[in-house]
Amino acid sequence: MSAASPSLATPATTAASTLTNRFHTIRQRTELLCRPLLPEDTVVQPMLDVSPPKWHLAHVTWFWETFLLKEHLPGYQVYHPDYAFLFNSYYNSLGSRVNRADRGTISRPALADVYAYRAHVDAHMPQLLALADTLPPAFHEVFELGLQHEQQHQELLATDIKYILSTSPLAPAYLDNSGLEDATRKATNPEAPRATWLPVPGGISRIGYEGNGFCFDNELNSHEVLTTDFEVQNRLVTNGEYLEFIAAGGYQDFRYWLGEGWDLVQTMHWEAPLYWVQKDNGWHRFTHHGLQPVHLAAPVTHVSFYEANAYANWAGARLLTEPEWEVAARHFGATPAGGTFLESNLFDPQPLPADADPTRCHQLLGDAWEWTYSAYHPYPGYSRAAGALGEYNGKFMVNQLVLRGGSCATPVSHIRLTYRNFFHADKRWQFTGIRLAR
Amino acid sequence: MSAASPSLATPATTAASTLTNRFHTIRQRTELLCRPLLPEDTVVQPMLDVSPPKWHLAHVTWFWETFLLKEHLPGYQVYHPDYAFLFNSYYNSLGSRVNRADRGTISRPALADVYAYRAHVDAHMPQLLALADTLPPAFHEVFELGLQHEQQHQELLATDIKYILSTSPLAPAYLDNSGLEDATRKATNPEAPRATWLPVPGGISRIGYEGNGFCFDNELNSHEVLTTDFEVQNRLVTNGEYLEFIAAGGYQDFRYWLGEGWDLVQTMHWEAPLYWVQKDNGWHRFTHHGLQPVHLAAPVTHVSFYEANAYANWAGARLLTEPEWEVAARHFGATPAGGTFLESNLFDPQPLPADADPTRCHQLLGDAWEWTYSAYHPYPGYSRAAGALGEYNGKFMVNQLVLRGGSCATPVSHIRLTYRNFFHADKRWQFTGIRLAR
Amino acid sequence: MSAASPSLATPATTAASTLTNRFHTIRQRTELLCRPLLPEDTVVQPMLDVSPPKWHLAHVTWFWETFLLKEHLPGYQVYHPDYAFLFNSYYNSLGSRVNRADRGTISRPALADVYAYRAHVDAHMPQLLALADTLPPAFHEVFELGLQHEQQHQELLATDIKYILSTSPLAPAYLDNSGLEDATRKATNPEAPRATWLPVPGGISRIGYEGNGFCFDNELNSHEVLTTDFEVQNRLVTNGEYLEFIAAGGYQDFRYWLGEGWDLVQTMHWEAPLYWVQKDNGWHRFTHHGLQPVHLAAPVTHVSFYEANAYANWAGARLLTEPEWEVAARHFGATPAGGTFLESNLFDPQPLPADADPTRCHQLLGDAWEWTYSAYHPYPGYSRAAGALGEYNGKFMVNQLVLRGGSCATPVSHIRLTYRNFFHADKRWQFTGIRLAR
Amino acid sequence: MSAASPSLATPATTAASTLTNRFHTIRQRTELLCRPLLPEDTVVQPMLDVSPPKWHLAHVTWFWETFLLKEHLPGYQVYHPDYAFLFNSYYNSLGSRVNRADRGTISRPALADVYAYRAHVDAHMPQLLALADTLPPAFHEVFELGLQHEQQHQELLATDIKYILSTSPLAPAYLDNSGLEDATRKATNPEAPRATWLPVPGGISRIGYEGNGFCFDNELNSHEVLTTDFEVQNRLVTNGEYLEFIAAGGYQDFRYWLGEGWDLVQTMHWEAPLYWVQKDNGWHRFTHHGLQPVHLAAPVTHVSFYEANAYANWAGARLLTEPEWEVAARHFGATPAGGTFLESNLFDPQPLPADADPTRCHQLLGDAWEWTYSAYHPYPGYSRAAGALGEYNGKFMVNQLVLRGGSCATPVSHIRLTYRNFFHADKRWQFTGIRLAR
Repeated sequence: MSAASPSLATPATTAASTLTNRFHTIRQRTELLCRPLLPEDTVVQPMLDVSPPKWHLAHVTWFWETFLLKEHLPGYQVYHPDYAFLFNSYYNSLGSRVNRADRGTISRPALADVYAYRAHVDAHMPQLLALADTLPPAFHEVFELGLQHEQQHQELLATDIKYILSTSPLAPAYLDNSGLEDATRKATNPEAPRATWLPVPGGISRIGYEGNGFCFDNELNSHEVLTTDFEVQNRLVTNGEYLEFIAAGGYQDFRYWLGEGWDLVQTMHWEAPLYWVQKDNGWHRFTHHGLQPVHLAAPVTHVSFYEANAYANWAGARLLTEPEWEVAARHFGATPAGGTFLESNLFDPQPLPADADPTRCHQLLGDAWEWTYSAYHPYPGYSRAAGALGEYNGKFMVNQLVLRGGSCATPVSHIRLTYRNFFHADKRWQFTGIRLAR
Repeated sequence: MSAASPSLATPATTAASTLTNRFHTIRQRTELLCRPLLPEDTVVQPMLDVSPPKWHLAHVTWFWETFLLKEHLPGYQVYHPDYAFLFNSYYNSLGSRVNRADRGTISRPALADVYAYRAHVDAHMPQLLALADTLPPAFHEVFELGLQHEQQHQELLATDIKYILSTSPLAPAYLDNSGLEDATRKATNPEAPRATWLPVPGGISRIGYEGNGFCFDNELNSHEVLTTDFEVQNRLVTNGEYLEFIAAGGYQDFRYWLGEGWDLVQTMHWEAPLYWVQKDNGWHRFTHHGLQPVHLAAPVTHVSFYEANAYANWAGARLLTEPEWEVAARHFGATPAGGTFLESNLFDPQPLPADADPTRCHQLLGDAWEWTYSAYHPYPGYSRAAGALGEYNGKFMVNQLVLRGGSCATPVSHIRLTYRNFFHADKRWQFTGIRLAR
Repeated sequence: MSAASPSLATPATTAASTLTNRFHTIRQRTELLCRPLLPEDTVVQPMLDVSPPKWHLAHVTWFWETFLLKEHLPGYQVYHPDYAFLFNSYYNSLGSRVNRADRGTISRPALADVYAYRAHVDAHMPQLLALADTLPPAFHEVFELGLQHEQQHQELLATDIKYILSTSPLAPAYLDNSGLEDATRKATNPEAPRATWLPVPGGISRIGYEGNGFCFDNELNSHEVLTTDFEVQNRLVTNGEYLEFIAAGGYQDFRYWLGEGWDLVQTMHWEAPLYWVQKDNGWHRFTHHGLQPVHLAAPVTHVSFYEANAYANWAGARLLTEPEWEVAARHFGATPAGGTFLESNLFDPQPLPADADPTRCHQLLGDAWEWTYSAYHPYPGYSRAAGALGEYNGKFMVNQLVLRGGSCATPVSHIRLTYRNFFHADKRWQFTGIRLAR
Repeated sequence: MSAASPSLATPATTAASTLTNRFHTIRQRTELLCRPLLPEDTVVQPMLDVSPPKWHLAHVTWFWETFLLKEHLPGYQVYHPDYAFLFNSYYNSLGSRVNRADRGTISRPALADVYAYRAHVDAHMPQLLALADTLPPAFHEVFELGLQHEQQHQELLATDIKYILSTSPLAPAYLDNSGLEDATRKATNPEAPRATWLPVPGGISRIGYEGNGFCFDNELNSHEVLTTDFEVQNRLVTNGEYLEFIAAGGYQDFRYWLGEGWDLVQTMHWEAPLYWVQKDNGWHRFTHHGLQPVHLAAPVTHVSFYEANAYANWAGARLLTEPEWEVAARHFGATPAGGTFLESNLFDPQPLPADADPTRCHQLLGDAWEWTYSAYHPYPGYSRAAGALGEYNGKFMVNQLVLRGGSCATPVSHIRLTYRNFFHADKRWQFTGIRLAR
């Protein structure tokens, strides 16, 4: 999971009813995402990075129970003594737990039991929130963190469900009969408009979070960075462009690849992004709508950092660094408008319209997480919080790369210009894409 | 799976209604076994030896469809083109298939779809059986094999379900609210009667199947064996006796162990049979009724060959060879009477009554599979059948040991004195037990 | 190592000078075998089954020191306190030791140090043997065992050296400039005489050791076996015959293979015996003389049990069982005459002469170990000796198959009709061959 | 190997005799390092990161042959056709090669053959260097790279030899009878002077190489960086200080550790730096002089990044970033004076003298590589060279961390303020140490 512990900023006190509303809205979205699933879909773990949806449903609930109810609601009794062992993700502070690799081997508690657990916690949270005025700022911080945490798991649910359904040869459609449309199927332009290069002037800029709202601790401290002049493409790399890389033998030529990436290409027999298969003389990819033809105009997704970097090398360009990305996003005044987010129920980035303004920078927020060529390391002055929540974020700050901008599976209220996501260079099951710089 | 391809003996023709009755009776037993399960329980695979119950339900159905309906019912259409890939177990003749290790990662088809598949095949089989009189002997052989095959998977279902439920810290009881009793809980005698040694005279005897009924090909050819005088214990080793071995440091003393077994003891930290845990100052074991205290009088089960052999060494005795076992079973006229089988719904071997006749040999059939110190190799004159069913049995004839006598999870109509079961020396999830000889 | 602990037979007392002579003769042979090696050759371990020659040289010396000098020579001081840790092979009774997998990673003590260790022990042994008359029978048994043990390691040295040299692309010849000839190169007949089938009558026979000389404990007790009439081929399967199996697609057809063997064929990409490579339009094999063309008339060697069994299946025949092999060898009065043994310095079995008597059974002793289809299990009445030497043999009695007859790397004085060698079914680096029965 | 491809800077033409002198001087140093070794020591590979000294000796020679002699000396014949396969390290451009994991399993060519190979190349290089005036700048660049490359392998030889000798329980001393002294044994001060914090003012600075001499391509382009005010300790962390961390339970408290580091601590049972063992009631460590007591005043070495970072967390400080390190080193005018380098034959960093100036920053060059908390990524404008040498460096730019300053195993003429070394966070066999910042 990509996550981060809470900032120290103290949120203003808010009416209990508002807090309760926000709580229920986010909790309901989680269950909405799982509604199309069968119980069978919610227990399996076809690879280590994926968690069973039943586990997600319970883990976020355990988070509320452990960090809020148990701490702050007088007289609250833990719902079940074994659930901490079962649904703690990675908090060493909170004791032993199921090995991550075993999450998909345990059938009980049943899905219905997990929903009962959710209902139990959902019933007690309003009692706690009614006391909000009397509770310390730390409570409000962790409450906000709980909401953000559950949103992070919404994104993981969307991507884990996709992976789970993809492993069946039946290629089941998560969204069949849903009335929802595949973003890339309804797109009318068969190819995206040609990418343009937009200049970003160099100099000293500030990056990192500075406002009064919520941010994760890894977005702090805001600090000055020095960048030089560079150019950035005005949109994400498309499937059509990526197909040219494939056709040019990009997966067969070690010169484009980092050494560890090239080893993976050979060992894993990669020859296209995750979910791509050749069928009936053409490339298809597995989506939330089942198997669909690759849409040339849509942004390429499900590529590893290795593939993103190899593509950039082949294209004679490069990826952005993290500071460059944030400087550019601020320079172009990036907003969520026009981006694809979780709430669209599209689960695929939209192609850029044929008449998109070539002088503006598109798709910076939403659509696909953009791999940067920057390591996920602490910002200056970063320090871990005390207690279990200190494990939220800081302990992951090595061997991972920063991704920026959110994706079509990110809740729109969850993203920020300063948001730092992070994954290992080989990961492909998130909606990860490519933007070029030079 | 332990299984064997059919003998060449030609069964007499039987009325279609009788065949249909047998078919439905056995098919219903399979579903009865799965009735207490939730859909979640039916998809997971917590270790490689275990298959998800959904897979078992579908695989046996695929067997009927592939070897009977597709071959012999005119106009029969395969239910789903992907099911052969999904539910073929190990038949190279029948094409590629899901890796065994991935059986528990695939959520679709759903459990309900698999039941629909079963219903489809169950609806077509009577049409085929109505033609039985016109079909060749080969049909009748394979029909009988299909019944035996489904019974083998009933035993695997019973043991795989136990393993699946055991992995949850909730220790869920398969049989709760079932009205069924744990065999060892209702036993009145706290300790078993002392074991006696019964002589078996040496000489030349015949072993292997010789009748007109069904047998697996691995029971053929019947042949003469030469045994010397030996003595055998009149009952299985009990939990109480095995506890003495544990208490005496049996798991800490390499001298009792075969080298590969000793490596396992150290690597896997074995210190008791599978399913045994220490709790509240006493040994408990996970059962189909959840966690229960160890009953001293009941036969020990869930031991590997290594443990069985180490126990025998510690006890100053030895295991029987396969020929000795069959010679002894014939000598004592072993019958299923008094044995515990699948149909008892007990899922645990019964303790020998305190007043059991010390001059008779008990528990030879049912209760627990007895590890022999004989390799699972072909009998003289054995040959693999042509076609896919030639893979049923012969290809497993190396690196496994023979077990004899059936267990409390074996259907009573499935066992024979000549039945040869086989497992690798390290396997513990079947109801495997110990009988001593000297 | 294939080895066995000593029999209980008490050897007659022998003059000290005779004992000393035998000791030195065998010790010198070991060093003779290592004379063509460079220090570099003596430390590497290119696979787990192989031990570095330096390790062999030291381990056999440690055996003499530990079981003889330390036990029986008054005042003897152990040569080096760390050598027990370094050169104990597998005796749990004698404490912790280097992991087998790490034998090839430890460069010190140097080869010269090991030779000094040998010289030290060689200098003290005569002092001990001078006391032989006064020592108990147990001493004489273990002395004899020490000789046999060192001979076993001579065979392992011959085969391990071959493997070590084979891993270099330089294909260095162990025997270059040695004046020795490759047995199969000097053979004049390009193809072996056609194999004949020789009948062996059934009945009750005795197998196992019965004389007054030395035998390993695994050859005891001698006992009666019952065999039926069968036929055996009068010679080993040749390279030419095995090439027909290869050419017929034997390595591509699962029907000939045991399941675990077929998995290996696919995983390891086996398509010929170990050491075979295709080059210049023909099959060559690596030998102690470097890379040589495959000689059609010579017995095939370096096949696993899986290959031996698959070949037999393809040829419409079968392998012998262990009792059948010994019954046949006794029936045909097998002797070492005409066989190839270690002392020949040929390191390859000889082709059967074109005029070999077709009514006699050839190549039963020497040339190649014959895989039997019998598990390496204890004979009736077998029991492990007390103390460390009880680990010599008994703890290996599972998951291995018996091989009979010795090979071109076996010292001629080491082999017996009753000798039981054993390896796992996948091993190929010994001189293992095939004899057919039906 | 940590290495980097050559800069594009064109070195001035130099007299052939000077070139030849430099060539021979560096080549002889390599052989000097191997002189105390036995042939046995030169072939083993006790872990994947280590290469056998014989391999190093040959690989650097292959480098000269492949990139210089073969390219530029008319009529030069490759010494042996198989050596490219055997001694190519990782250049995909130059064809297939021995798996890295197998370098220690191949005994031939012998060590003497490798020295003959070296002599052959050493004899031809002067012929080529005599033509230096007529050769293009590219020749001079690669010649310089060849020297630097061989120096890099000198450092690896020093550290690989240490690891190889450490695996023997005999703890052999590389330097015994060498007349050389252990730096930390001769140190008179038992404890180091207390560390002081030295301020480094923030602002914009340039880092990266800018001169006319040699640098690796990864030191380019030089560029501006922005740092804030920070403080750095005036010396490396000592063994004594690190022992306090151990004594305080640092290896048992997950809060100090990055997640992946904590997993390693648990899996590998780390409880001290590499080479540390407890013996006779005190900590010892394996050195080039065999096992020696830990000297409290000497810098701690052989720690992973995880340990360095955990130590810093425990100490309430942090590691420097790469830009900070270079800015500080420039600020303090770091020079090699007083540092311990390869040529000292000490193979251990020296303790800081008790009277060392507390206002100066010591041990920046030599002694121990300092882990920075910066990823090894390309500098702005970095591009891989065309051809095989493009693989020298760029393909390693992910998942590794930068280390700065050189160590006691680095040749003094090889280090620079701008030198970027890189290793994975778990590596410990180099002389890696810790400097604190805040």
